[in-house]
Parts: sequence; C-alpha cells; structure tokens
Amino acid sequence: MDPNNSTIIINAYILTMDEHLNAYPNGYVKITDGLIEAVGQDFQGSPEQYENLLDAKGGIVIPGMINCHTHAAMSLFRGLGDDEPDRLYRYIYPLEKEYVTPEFVRLGSELSCAEMLLSGTTFFADMYFFEEEVAMAAEQIGIRVLAGQTVMNRPLPDADHFEDGIKRAEEFCRGWKDSSLVEPCIAPHAPYSLERNQLIQIMEFSKEHQTDVQMHVAESEREEKFISQLGETSSVSYLNSLNLLNERLLASHCIRINEADIQLLEEHDCRVSHNPVANTKGAHGTCPLYELLEQKIIVGLGTDGPMSGNNLDLFRQMAVAAPLQKNLKGDRTLIDSKQILSLATLRGAEAIGKGGSTGSIETGKWADLVVFDSESVRHTPLHDPYSTVVYSLQASDVKDVFVSGKQVVENGILVNSDLNQITNKARQFISKWPNL
Amino acid sequence: MDPNNSTIIINAYILTMDEHLNAYPNGYVKITDGLIEAVGQDFQGSPEQYENLLDAKGGIVIPGMINCHTHAAMSLFRGLGDDEPDRLYRYIYPLEKEYVTPEFVRLGSELSCAEMLLSGTTFFADMYFFEEEVAMAAEQIGIRVLAGQTVMNRPLPDADHFEDGIKRAEEFCRGWKDSSLVEPCIAPHAPYSLERNQLIQIMEFSKEHQTDVQMHVAESEREEKFISQLGETSSVSYLNSLNLLNERLLASHCIRINEADIQLLEEHDCRVSHNPVANTKGAHGTCPLYELLEQKIIVGLGTDGPMSGNNLDLFRQMAVAAPLQKNLKGDRTLIDSKQILSLATLRGAEAIGKGGSTGSIETGKWADLVVFDSESVRHTPLHDPYSTVVYSLQASDVKDVFVSGKQVVENGILVNSDLNQITNKARQFISKWPNL
Repeated sequence: MDPNNSTIIINAYILTMDEHLNAYPNGYVKITDGLIEAVGQDFQGSPEQYENLLDAKGGIVIPGMINCHTHAAMSLFRGLGDDEPDRLYRYIYPLEKEYVTPEFVRLGSELSCAEMLLSGTTFFADMYFFEEEVAMAAEQIGIRVLAGQTVMNRPLPDADHFEDGIKRAEEFCRGWKDSSLVEPCIAPHAPYSLERNQLIQIMEFSKEHQTDVQMHVAESEREEKFISQLGETSSVSYLNSLNLLNERLLASHCIRINEADIQLLEEHDCRVSHNPVANTKGAHGTCPLYELLEQKIIVGLGTDGPMSGNNLDLFRQMAVAAPLQKNLKGDRTLIDSKQILSLATLRGAEAIGKGGSTGSIETGKWADLVVFDSESVRHTPLHDPYSTVVYSLQASDVKDVFVSGKQVVENGILVNSDLNQITNKARQFISKWPNL
Repeated sequence: MDPNNSTIIINAYILTMDEHLNAYPNGYVKITDGLIEAVGQDFQGSPEQYENLLDAKGGIVIPGMINCHTHAAMSLFRGLGDDEPDRLYRYIYPLEKEYVTPEFVRLGSELSCAEMLLSGTTFFADMYFFEEEVAMAAEQIGIRVLAGQTVMNRPLPDADHFEDGIKRAEEFCRGWKDSSLVEPCIAPHAPYSLERNQLIQIMEFSKEHQTDVQMHVAESEREEKFISQLGETSSVSYLNSLNLLNERLLASHCIRINEADIQLLEEHDCRVSHNPVANTKGAHGTCPLYELLEQKIIVGLGTDGPMSGNNLDLFRQMAVAAPLQKNLKGDRTLIDSKQILSLATLRGAEAIGKGGSTGSIETGKWADLVVFDSESVRHTPLHDPYSTVVYSLQASDVKDVFVSGKQVVENGILVNSDLNQITNKARQFISKWPNL
C-alpha cells in the first residue's frame, strides 16, 4: 500500500486560489489517493484516521505553482553571456551545437527540476532538445512537465533537419502519452525560425497527436523585422493566417503585440506565458500584461531558461510582474497580489491546459500543494497573505511540497533525489569544458 | 581574550570588489583583531595559527553588502496598502501616528536587522523615528547602521514639531557618536515636507555635528508639483540653492532628475541610493541609473522600507537594477554584473561615507564578509561568479557573515539573537492591533 495514500494538513493558512479566492486562515486539506478530498476551515475530526499528518504551524499553503515557460537543461549555461548583443545567433546557437547532448540535457534538467520543486513549482512547461531526458529527469524527481520537443528549420543538437525533428517529436509524443507526470507536446521554436509550410505541418501534428503547441511569439525586434519582410503585419496575425491560433497554443513572451493581436489571441482562446524577469534582462520590452488581463486572456508566468533568467524562481516573476505594469502606466493601484498569485497558480494551470486538474486547492483536483515555513522572517508579520507570498516570500521559504499527494519536498529537502549528488554531477560535467 | 581575535577563511572564491576587481578563485582571507590582515590566492601557511578556521568549500566570498536606504522598523507594516493610491498621506502617516512607539521601532528593527544580516547585508542606512531603538537593535544583533533621526515639518510619533525633532536629533547624534557599529546622523524627510528655513537649519546641523544628511530626493510626482509651486525647477536645484548639495548628502531615489540635476549632483559630490524594487512597485518611474553611473556619481543600492519593497533583500535590487536600464534603453549590453555588485558593496560603502573602511576585501579594512553556500543549487554551475551573485543567488544562499571579524551568522543561523524569539515577539505585538 502506498504510504502516502492519505494525508491531512492542519493549522494552515490556505489560499485555495479557486475562482472565488476562498481562503481559510485556520484551514485544513484532506488528501486521499493523490487527490484533494476536502479543504476547509477549523478541522474537527481526528487526524489519526490519516496515515500522514502535517501541522503547518500557521504557514501559508498554496497550490503548487506553474512555470509556463522554460528550457530547464540550460541551467548548465547559467551565467554565460548575460550581456551579449546578438546573443541567440552568435552565442547560444554555437554553444548548443557544441555542448548539448543527452547527458547535458539530463544533468541540466535534474538541476533545474530540483530548483523548481524546492521553490514550490510542481508543473513546468519545457521546450528543448532530447526532450525525453527532461521527461525522465522530471519523473525521477517527481515534478510534472509539459514537455515540448523543439523543432526548427536548422540543424539542431538532436536533429539534422526539420523532418528529423518532426520524427523525433512523433516518437516522443507517442512514447510518453501514458505518463502520469509527463505530458508530451511539440515546440516549434518561433514564427521566424520555421518556414510557412513547416508551421502548417506543426498545426497538423498538433491535431493528429492531440498535443499542445509551445512557441516563442512576438519576442524580439529581430522577429518583428523578419515578419515584416514576409509582408506580414505581426507575428500573431501571421500565425493566424496559418490557422495556428487556437486553444492548443501556448505563446511565450508576447511582448511586441498590438491591440489587434490581443484581440486575435482572445478570439482564438490562445494562452500566454509572461516571463517578466528574462524579458526585462534581455531588453526586449514589456509585455502588455495589463491589457492581456483586461481582455481576459489566460496568462501564466514563466521564468524562461536559466541562461536568460538565471534561475527558475517564480517568486521573482511574481514580485516584478505587477510593478513593471504599475511603473509603465504610472499607476500604483494596478494589478493586486491576488491577481498575480492567480497567474502563478490557476491561470498558469489553464495556460498549460490543466486548469481542470491542478492550479487550485479544490476537491477532486490533484493534491499539488506548497506549504510555507511560518517561522521565516519573511512570513512575519502576516497582514495580507497574498502580498506575503507575492512580494515577501522567497524560494527558500518553501518548506513542504506535494505532487499528487506524494511529498516530494520535506522540510526543504528533496525526497526522491539527493541534491548534493545532482549539483556535484553538474559541476563535474562542466569541469570538462574549456573556459567559456 | 576575544575568541574571534583571528580567523582564516580558506578555499573561497573571493571577489574582493576592490577598484581593480581582483578575484581569487582559490582564495583566502586572514582576519586579525577585526580587520582584514591579508587576502590572496592559494593559502600556503598553517591554518592552526588562527583561532578560527572556516573552509568555504569553494563558495563565493564577497564584502558585506550595504543597504543604502531603508526604514527598518516598518517591517511590522509589511504587506499593508501595497496598491493604495495616495499611500503616503492617506495611509502611512495615519498608521504611523497610531502605531509607531519605541516598542514598535525596536521590534520592527530587530526583525529587519535579522533579515538583513541573514541575507548578507552588514551595513544599512536607516531613516525613522525613535532612531535610538534602531541603533540598539543593530548593536544587539551585530549589524552596522547609519542611523538617521527623521525630522519633518509636522507632528511625528516622536516629536510634536520640527524644533522638537531637531532636539531629538541632537541628543541622538551626541549620544551615539562613540558607538562602533552605529553612526548617527540626521534625516530630513524630503524637500517638500520641510520649510526652506528648516532645510537651511539642517545644513547647519550637519556642519556643526559633522553628520551625514539622509533625504528622499526627487521621488514622486507630488514632490515635483510642490517644488514647481515654489517656483523652483527641480528638487535638486532647490536643494542646491539652499547649499544642501554636498558630500554629506545621501539622496535617496533621484528618480525625477534631469541632465542639469545630474550635473549638480556630480559637481557637489553628492551620493545617491538607488532603490529599484520599491520605486517600480510604487510606479514612481525609473531612476536614470545608467546616466548617473556614466557621470561617475557614487550610487549604492537600497531596499527602501519593507512596507514599500516588502523585504530587505539586496539580491532582488541587484537582479533588477541593470535589467530595468537595459529594457528602458532597449540595449541588453548595458551595465554588467561586476558593476552591479560594486553598487551593492564598494560604491554602497562610499555612498554612506564609509568607502575607506568597508565595501571591499582589502588589507586594513574592517572584516565585513559574506560567505555563500557552495552547495546551493543556485551556486551551480559557476561560470561567472559575478553573474552568479547578481542574478542567481538569493538571500538564503548566504551561509556565514562576519562584521569586524566577528561571526554574526553561522551556517544560516544568527549568532547573537534567536530568530524565533524575534519573529514571535513581532507576531505577538501586532496581534493586539485590529485588522488593518
């Protein structure tokens, strides 16, 4: 019998993040067979009937957070080329060509999965090469992933040309369709790095295999120029002309979009990943998050790869997302912390197509939960728990994490993997490289 | 005999942050009688001759960081009124009138001093009321403070009118002038909250008592309007007309400044605290940091009070400072992580007038040091240690902290105070308040 079959968490300040933002200051969550059985205020029964009891000691409990955009394996490149001008073409592509192997992807993903779980992320959307290595790393450590096998119209570390990449993606999506933690999908890199007919092929792939499509959309000035040279007005309208705008599309970045683009994204039920830390550092501009939210477009938060954002920390995304909009518009009242925590939880789950299963603490959903350390200096004092999570707490304030009711982080320590082993392997692996 | 009389730190990746940015990948620091005796590469002697040996295990070591602007005691208000429109006048002032007592300042300062030391800040510049309570909290926990007794032209929690405030400030500056950790000074709130003759009086106070002057300068639209109603063109030029621009002035914020203002700040050797997280959240605009640095103006980083920035974390300031400038200018190459770490260390020390004593790891300076946990997931891998500190590491990655050679944080635990006692006292204190 599974030792984690039933668990009760008591004495918790529960932010359910459901549509009504129900919250229970002296709350409890009952977990049975990996699902949330009940959530409420003032537990009355006897905790002994549950196999596991967790006393949150007044700590805030939120749903497991969702990282809607990353390239997990790139943690092995973290800190390289922060300030390079033509970074993607002259720096990253050559690095990847040289160093990205299955082992690279495995070790980098293990490092990133560890960082994400330890910081309260229970589900991440990934785009990279050798995506089966990402999937295996995720399964081993116990984190969920929407794993996107990347395809591009250029030689890649795992495919010599586009058709090879499509074959890889097919194999990957077939091979992983029954995993409980891994949802496979396809990840066309961007509107500018694939041909028109290739993008159409992606759309057909998505329909045939019933997979999501993760793509970088409207990220850079370079992309804007390319699109305008095609005679198109914007990346979004170009994708629309190819029938790629639909409820399966998770469009990352969406920085350089206009009112008409926002309208198109809304009409076609597209979902957006907003990645404010990496976007700002990359000097790409500021995504019109306020306008996207006004149009009720589903937006989640993402870190982008750890070579762009330098860590995989959703707390940092939450802390800057509203301030960047406030500052841009000169209005400090815009977008409160409830709305921001929603982006990191329920809206994020919707953005990766899993709003029915996770993203909020509700009966029948997967028991994906994060418990904070009530004794942290940043948890003190507690006037507004939403503000505390969004603006004060940090990765290290995460104490316990559950995925499908199984505890995967216990008192700040990974349950299924040895962190020192993971970091040592990563260090040893890069020690063979020359100075980069 | 002082047990901390001599210490050697070995096996450290030392970023000295001196003017030449000397760094020692397999470095050591020798500490004797609270001062740095030597720093270098590949320690050869026998560590036994030192009373204390710390093996950094490859962890990065930096100078203790400097928080150039905060109101530490306001941690007890953390999370209140994040999105209030007329926040200062309609929200904060009434709150302070009601709740700010010596006990409030003591407990809030203890909480903030704990947060700062644990996150690698060894010196902070503070502006508040009952500043002797801040000073006592700092001495007890073992952190340095440039403690500014605030004066304004309105009834304050600790002074009924301006003249009372000046008397308090005099007493405070006299009483604390011989402390080894506390440097007392005067803190006129802002150009718009004092009369012209009062500002002149401040200038005379500073000369007579040889103290620094901490002031909010060019922060808000409201301030701009007030200054223009005085018939002045800017806060900076107004202060110049009153002879308040000099090397004793630590001007916080400096968001709304023009080219002529920057020129004036440079000509008069003024120092600036840049507080990007709080400024962005407050929708005040973006300080022209790039231009200030181009003009070689001394700039340090600050968190602002924990009711504005919601924590006292210089890592978050470092992580956003360059990105905000890059994004504003559309140029990802601007301001590298070496420059940003300088702001948090040597430039910060210069900004609070202590560049000769701290802010870099150099022979003869105070042994104010921070040792990072080399086993942290965010410390891995280590391609560029400056980028690692600025963009990847977080408060919780600080392992050991020394102030004047005395260890004040050991393996992430405060040495001189009990954190649980501090957070419990804070919680109990606010539990008496109604819901705010």
